[in-house]
Amino acid sequence: MEGAALTRRGLLVGIGAAGGAGAMYAAMGALGLAPGDQDKAFVPPRASDFSLQGRAAGKVVILGAGVAGLTAAYELGKAGYDCTLLEARGKAGGRNLTLRGGDRLTELNGPAQQVTFGERAYFNAGPARIAPWMVTLDYCRELGIPIETFVNRNAHAYVHTSGQTVRSGAARADMYGYVAELLAKATDLGALDKKLTRDDRERLLEFLTRFGDLGPKLDYEGSSRRGYAELPGLDAGAPLGAPGTLSQVLAAGTGRAITNDFGYEQATPMFQPVGGMDAIVTGLVEAVGADRIRTGAQVTQITSLADGVEVTWRGGRMKADYCVATLPPHVLAKIPHNLGEPVTAALRTPVPVAAGKIGLEYGRRWWEIEDRIYGGITETDLDITHIWYPSHDYHAARGVVVGYYNTGAEAELYGALTPEDRRRRALTQGKKIHGEKYRADVLSAASIAWERQEHIQGGWVRWPVIDSSFTLLQRPSARVYFAGDWLTHLIAWQAGAMQSARSAVTQLHQRVLRSP
Amino acid sequence: MEGAALTRRGLLVGIGAAGGAGAMYAAMGALGLAPGDQDKAFVPPRASDFSLQGRAAGKVVILGAGVAGLTAAYELGKAGYDCTLLEARGKAGGRNLTLRGGDRLTELNGPAQQVTFGERAYFNAGPARIAPWMVTLDYCRELGIPIETFVNRNAHAYVHTSGQTVRSGAARADMYGYVAELLAKATDLGALDKKLTRDDRERLLEFLTRFGDLGPKLDYEGSSRRGYAELPGLDAGAPLGAPGTLSQVLAAGTGRAITNDFGYEQATPMFQPVGGMDAIVTGLVEAVGADRIRTGAQVTQITSLADGVEVTWRGGRMKADYCVATLPPHVLAKIPHNLGEPVTAALRTPVPVAAGKIGLEYGRRWWEIEDRIYGGITETDLDITHIWYPSHDYHAARGVVVGYYNTGAEAELYGALTPEDRRRRALTQGKKIHGEKYRADVLSAASIAWERQEHIQGGWVRWPVIDSSFTLLQRPSARVYFAGDWLTHLIAWQAGAMQSARSAVTQLHQRVLRSP
Repeated sequence: MEGAALTRRGLLVGIGAAGGAGAMYAAMGALGLAPGDQDKAFVPPRASDFSLQGRAAGKVVILGAGVAGLTAAYELGKAGYDCTLLEARGKAGGRNLTLRGGDRLTELNGPAQQVTFGERAYFNAGPARIAPWMVTLDYCRELGIPIETFVNRNAHAYVHTSGQTVRSGAARADMYGYVAELLAKATDLGALDKKLTRDDRERLLEFLTRFGDLGPKLDYEGSSRRGYAELPGLDAGAPLGAPGTLSQVLAAGTGRAITNDFGYEQATPMFQPVGGMDAIVTGLVEAVGADRIRTGAQVTQITSLADGVEVTWRGGRMKADYCVATLPPHVLAKIPHNLGEPVTAALRTPVPVAAGKIGLEYGRRWWEIEDRIYGGITETDLDITHIWYPSHDYHAARGVVVGYYNTGAEAELYGALTPEDRRRRALTQGKKIHGEKYRADVLSAASIAWERQEHIQGGWVRWPVIDSSFTLLQRPSARVYFAGDWLTHLIAWQAGAMQSARSAVTQLHQRVLRSP
Repeated sequence: MEGAALTRRGLLVGIGAAGGAGAMYAAMGALGLAPGDQDKAFVPPRASDFSLQGRAAGKVVILGAGVAGLTAAYELGKAGYDCTLLEARGKAGGRNLTLRGGDRLTELNGPAQQVTFGERAYFNAGPARIAPWMVTLDYCRELGIPIETFVNRNAHAYVHTSGQTVRSGAARADMYGYVAELLAKATDLGALDKKLTRDDRERLLEFLTRFGDLGPKLDYEGSSRRGYAELPGLDAGAPLGAPGTLSQVLAAGTGRAITNDFGYEQATPMFQPVGGMDAIVTGLVEAVGADRIRTGAQVTQITSLADGVEVTWRGGRMKADYCVATLPPHVLAKIPHNLGEPVTAALRTPVPVAAGKIGLEYGRRWWEIEDRIYGGITETDLDITHIWYPSHDYHAARGVVVGYYNTGAEAELYGALTPEDRRRRALTQGKKIHGEKYRADVLSAASIAWERQEHIQGGWVRWPVIDSSFTLLQRPSARVYFAGDWLTHLIAWQAGAMQSARSAVTQLHQRVLRSP
């Protein structure tokens, strides 16, 4: 969630760049936040926690076997809690969904899709990348899930805005070139003399010349960074062509596209599990024990009792000492319970956001062979928003391109179409960027509209404001704990689900240890 | 070779951004330069080329079994040429050298090193990354060599300059932030009104706000892009701290470090063969046939004859129809020949450049677990210049870090030390960035000083000017053809060696087809 507002500033303000890593580490260490230890506060429950206390791990019912539910079960299981996961869908994973040939995908008010991708091909229909600082990677390490680089930035991918297509490296070179020229000339003319010492000015000009690849007169006249029409080799090559004018470059509107990895959450490099994101689900399910997960179990009632929680689902009922509810808040809000009106009101506060993706399988990797795009993302102001090229199985015979990944209004637009019409529209749009091969060479497609996925009904949620509803649900209501990415500032990231699950687990376990 | 001068501008100047990919492709296609077809001019020789002509492929002696020599043999072999490669060193590959446990590395005027890395660990002592537009990837595809992403840019790696250490993402955020603020304010005050229309100004301010993460008053006051002291999760987190002042940020001298992937040759993403760069050597040797390569064969004389070439080496002599000489020019220049003084003078023109690297094997991947650095490069003004973290086998038990990769004076400084002293110095320097663990946890090391490698004697060469010596050697002298990265504008890249070999092969084959 790039751009999440920072609402709290810690003690560390001011320690930043000046002191170097030593001072930074020292300060962070003093706060128990040594770098790399992403969640130092978390101590997994252990069976030995009970040994001197005469207490025992209890029975816990977990609603939802998505990433939050599985993480909660996994961590509670370390101390011997007897967990049961109730999952309304046909399989565990929730939004961590990887589609492969043979899968069948149903949706609310729409036809089912039969996925016909070839062997090895996969499409991460939900989360598809992991930032290196996120706890998600810690779980990959702990569970032995191999990871590989996800290419989030690619200078050779395209930017298609205002009807024009350029390589993102060229778009960046042009914008940086003109920004550098403008500032260098303003500096050179003395317009900034009040702000800059002489040393500052010299250093700034040196930087700008490098940053914008400026000529000796501080002009931007293009750069080999834009690419080549004739590549260097036996001779020096021929550059791709002169850039447009400053006005043309500004009018092209490439700004959003060329800053897409500027946020801390999407900064290059990013990572993905080898073979599909659901390797995380598979790893967690194995660790938890598949027999603890009851699929097709749609919860219909949650009843808080004096000494436990009773949960009813279509086809069964169980009592446990505690409950961890990890369903999306808008789904949970509709299930009858006796936790009080403030809980219902709080669950109703976050607003579901539509999100959609399509996976397009091609019989040849033309984006690699012809466009020299190996992984990465083409950014566009077309309603497809992005085209993702696979960061794995380079040079394989086939490959799956993500033909759109959009949210909000664009996602709703595509989601309202039939799968066949989504495919057709995605191909028509992508053809504007890649030409006829984009439509001609496609073998099959599979699309998802998360707002139309049963029992999920949204890509993620948006809190109109982070208010008391948010903090209310971060604490248990009687013996019911809530967890999910939606209760964190890492919404739409698996790391949010994991952190939230850890918080619920810690609160629950501490309570058990404290209980008389 | 970032910054290679463009000496020729083609017909395409001016077609650039304006026309979009369609126009660009059309124009490039018209010149036979469709994107993705990196060397369209090259048609591999085929046995069938001879079928209607009554001619036959001849015998070719190739001097040097590095990437250029192997590529020449591979391409000539497609038409049935009978190639013999004479390689002075103990094995094929030249500077494409991957060191593993069990390897022994000798050097001129220095002790031999026994490499003791553990299983799976490797160190690409020569080339270590491939740009996606380079012909090197075409050979990987053709030869079935799996590739994976090489992380050349990492926001979480460090910049250590002027004695201070910051994350490269933080250094970039600060520099971009202040550049954006300065230009935004100059723009806002009307200092650029002559250069900007009202639309331009609005668009520029919108871009600068995004680019620098500026506040509503166009101030740069830090950004979550710098990173966090307390990561976002259950709450919004605490930012890493306020940035230094503009003067401090400029004085830190991070400019070179934060623009390191701006050149077209090093633009993100880059790639590497899975398991070590020498997979390319292995693939070419297999395709050529190991029995065609005579190792330990130091050439001592090249004699051009009326109907062929005679080559003498320590221990043998052979006559062939043609010769392709791929040795480094400064090595080739010392071998007696009868090709004339201009050839010798031309071969003496390029100047060898020293280059060195050290591989440090650690018993744990502290850079991933503690620093959250997964691949990428720390840039520094210390004499180690760079620290590279491995882009593969993430989360494995062990890993090899490149503790320095330097050239010129710094490389000579390290090269003059014993391997043990290189290791000690590299660890002392790296400790300034990473702390005591950098020295404490190292298991073993292996270093290379390319200027001290027998029969190679340099990392690569530098042409004082690209003059008639360069073009003279791009053409055959009698029946001797020259090839190597040093005869291209892709010096120090395997792609240069490959392109040059292709040129020699094409010239040779055309001549054979034309010959009476």
